[in-house]
Amino acid sequence: MSPTVIKFGILGCAEIARKVSRAITLAPNATIYAVASRSLDKATKFAAENSFPPETKLYGSYDALLEDPAVDAVYVPLPTSLHIHWAVVAARKGKHILLEKPVALNVAEFDVIVKACVENGVQLMDGTMWMHHPRTAKMREFVSDKGRFGDVKAMHTTFTFAGTANFLTNDIRVKPDLDGLGALGDAGWYCIRSILWGADYELPEIVTALPGPVFNEAGVIFSCGASLRWKDGKIATFHCSFLSHLTMDITAIGTKGTLHVHDFIIPFQEKEASFSLASESWFNDLVTGWVPKPSEHLVRTELPQEALMVKEFSSLVDAIKTKGSKPEMKWPTISRKTQLVLDSVKLSIEQGFVAIEVHE
Amino acid sequence: MSPTVIKFGILGCAEIARKVSRAITLAPNATIYAVASRSLDKATKFAAENSFPPETKLYGSYDALLEDPAVDAVYVPLPTSLHIHWAVVAARKGKHILLEKPVALNVAEFDVIVKACVENGVQLMDGTMWMHHPRTAKMREFVSDKGRFGDVKAMHTTFTFAGTANFLTNDIRVKPDLDGLGALGDAGWYCIRSILWGADYELPEIVTALPGPVFNEAGVIFSCGASLRWKDGKIATFHCSFLSHLTMDITAIGTKGTLHVHDFIIPFQEKEASFSLASESWFNDLVTGWVPKPSEHLVRTELPQEALMVKEFSSLVDAIKTKGSKPEMKWPTISRKTQLVLDSVKLSIEQGFVAIEVHE
Repeated sequence: MSPTVIKFGILGCAEIARKVSRAITLAPNATIYAVASRSLDKATKFAAENSFPPETKLYGSYDALLEDPAVDAVYVPLPTSLHIHWAVVAARKGKHILLEKPVALNVAEFDVIVKACVENGVQLMDGTMWMHHPRTAKMREFVSDKGRFGDVKAMHTTFTFAGTANFLTNDIRVKPDLDGLGALGDAGWYCIRSILWGADYELPEIVTALPGPVFNEAGVIFSCGASLRWKDGKIATFHCSFLSHLTMDITAIGTKGTLHVHDFIIPFQEKEASFSLASESWFNDLVTGWVPKPSEHLVRTELPQEALMVKEFSSLVDAIKTKGSKPEMKWPTISRKTQLVLDSVKLSIEQGFVAIEVHE
Repeated sequence: MSPTVIKFGILGCAEIARKVSRAITLAPNATIYAVASRSLDKATKFAAENSFPPETKLYGSYDALLEDPAVDAVYVPLPTSLHIHWAVVAARKGKHILLEKPVALNVAEFDVIVKACVENGVQLMDGTMWMHHPRTAKMREFVSDKGRFGDVKAMHTTFTFAGTANFLTNDIRVKPDLDGLGALGDAGWYCIRSILWGADYELPEIVTALPGPVFNEAGVIFSCGASLRWKDGKIATFHCSFLSHLTMDITAIGTKGTLHVHDFIIPFQEKEASFSLASESWFNDLVTGWVPKPSEHLVRTELPQEALMVKEFSSLVDAIKTKGSKPEMKWPTISRKTQLVLDSVKLSIEQGFVAIEVHE
């Protein structure tokens, strides 16, 4: 039996929706069924520009798309401030939800979304694409290997990009009423997620924002960082910014090994990605070189990571639709942890860089 | 006229002295003339084990070596707590000084050493070898290039290594009365120096230690980190440790470029070293790859970095001896700045991770 093809409705014509629309088309178990914007004109234009199939349903309101009983799942790239409303409405309509990050303005809002999804038996997953790259699984193997990596002791992650003058003035990510979490919600989301990934999703005990965040005139974060500390002594730092050159690093240091990756969010190229690892390296006799040297590992993928994300999400939806499975709670659980740490960073900044205790 | 060959006396038979002795032999303008230990037996054994020339003078006390008028310069790998005494004695005897790092237990002690050197007209340089690798100059070119790198906005540097049980119990770097600054003085010295290097030696305005330092039972730091912030908004973090796998990273992010190096202190191999840089990278149209991708740059060197250090030091000594030049103050100045930031991190830890203002 061939798998059910999950029919997606796209809720909003954000720039990122172009990439995810292509991913829905590429995923073998998903298809673009409908697209909605606040006006029919915009939806029509978006469908044409992105070569959607001619039979794609076009809607001039989000409500209209959500009323369509043929829509299995929605992809929600709307501004963060609108997530709570539209995700809850979608869940109540029985639509499975692929939700852009940050998932909400804070954990309290996200909990409302999760509750609606649980009550309506719909799958919820956030749009953090790199989680689905096969490289990520390979890196996980290394970091989980007690013999080669040991126990994780320290991590540093970074996501920065240099926003243009137009971006820094007009993008929704610099508007307090739209994506009000700014660089922390956008770039910082990935930094925090990758740290939690490295910590196998154990929450840190305390989170302390670092001195020197930058804000725009409306108080939206343009650049910030934080320090995290776990009960077992593990530590991490991250830095995120709209104001510096494109950089996306994970450095994870264990007792026996080190992992480096410099393109963890968007690989340098689509079909192959690499990372570097060193295990039990030490110096040669005169301390003039390393033995062994770090090694580079290449991972190929036929489908890009965003298509693998859609595929994974769609197969969970398929299991719910056709096999009566329960929604997979792993995904909303890690979304929530990411948001929780993000909230703690924001609170620490607001309170003058004090240490914030993180409670589940 | 061939350059004067500077006659070195080695003050103490530390492990690191093996590497630097070889460097003195390799440098074209330096030679091993004498070695002193607290016993003649130890000096004799060290000279034999490291294949010193048979004419090498062997001394059973540091004072005896410093009394030898033929000694031009001393290399001082003694425990940090002994630097102030022996560096001052050496300066008063007119010996030029290549001093291991950390240069002192604190800036006040270092100022006493600098004063003695200035009063006696002797060159002072610390033993931070990577400063002298031609790769470092190449990296500097990139970081100073406003067109390709822009202005530095954020840095992260790391030096960690996994000390053996024997190291963590018996090494001088874990003893409060010997190298009492522990991992901060040893590994942290490099992290701080590389951050200052990236900031073109401008001091940060504030330094804040990060939560989670680890100490041994005697209170010596085994692992710590800090956050630095400059007046212009530039920020940096570092992490140093005796408790995690070998890692030595500089990440420097500018407005237009990014620099990565993963072996900045001891290159993976002796005769060539590389770094990676990206300049004005952005995403392709669908945000599924980078344009351009970062590039790798290889720098070859015939002499290892520690021999280049000895060569540079010796040519400064030569200029003083034969041309009446003044000692080059650039080197003690950057040693002092490194120590000053190091002192601030220590103070911040002692005061419960408060922000410490750094004053020249």
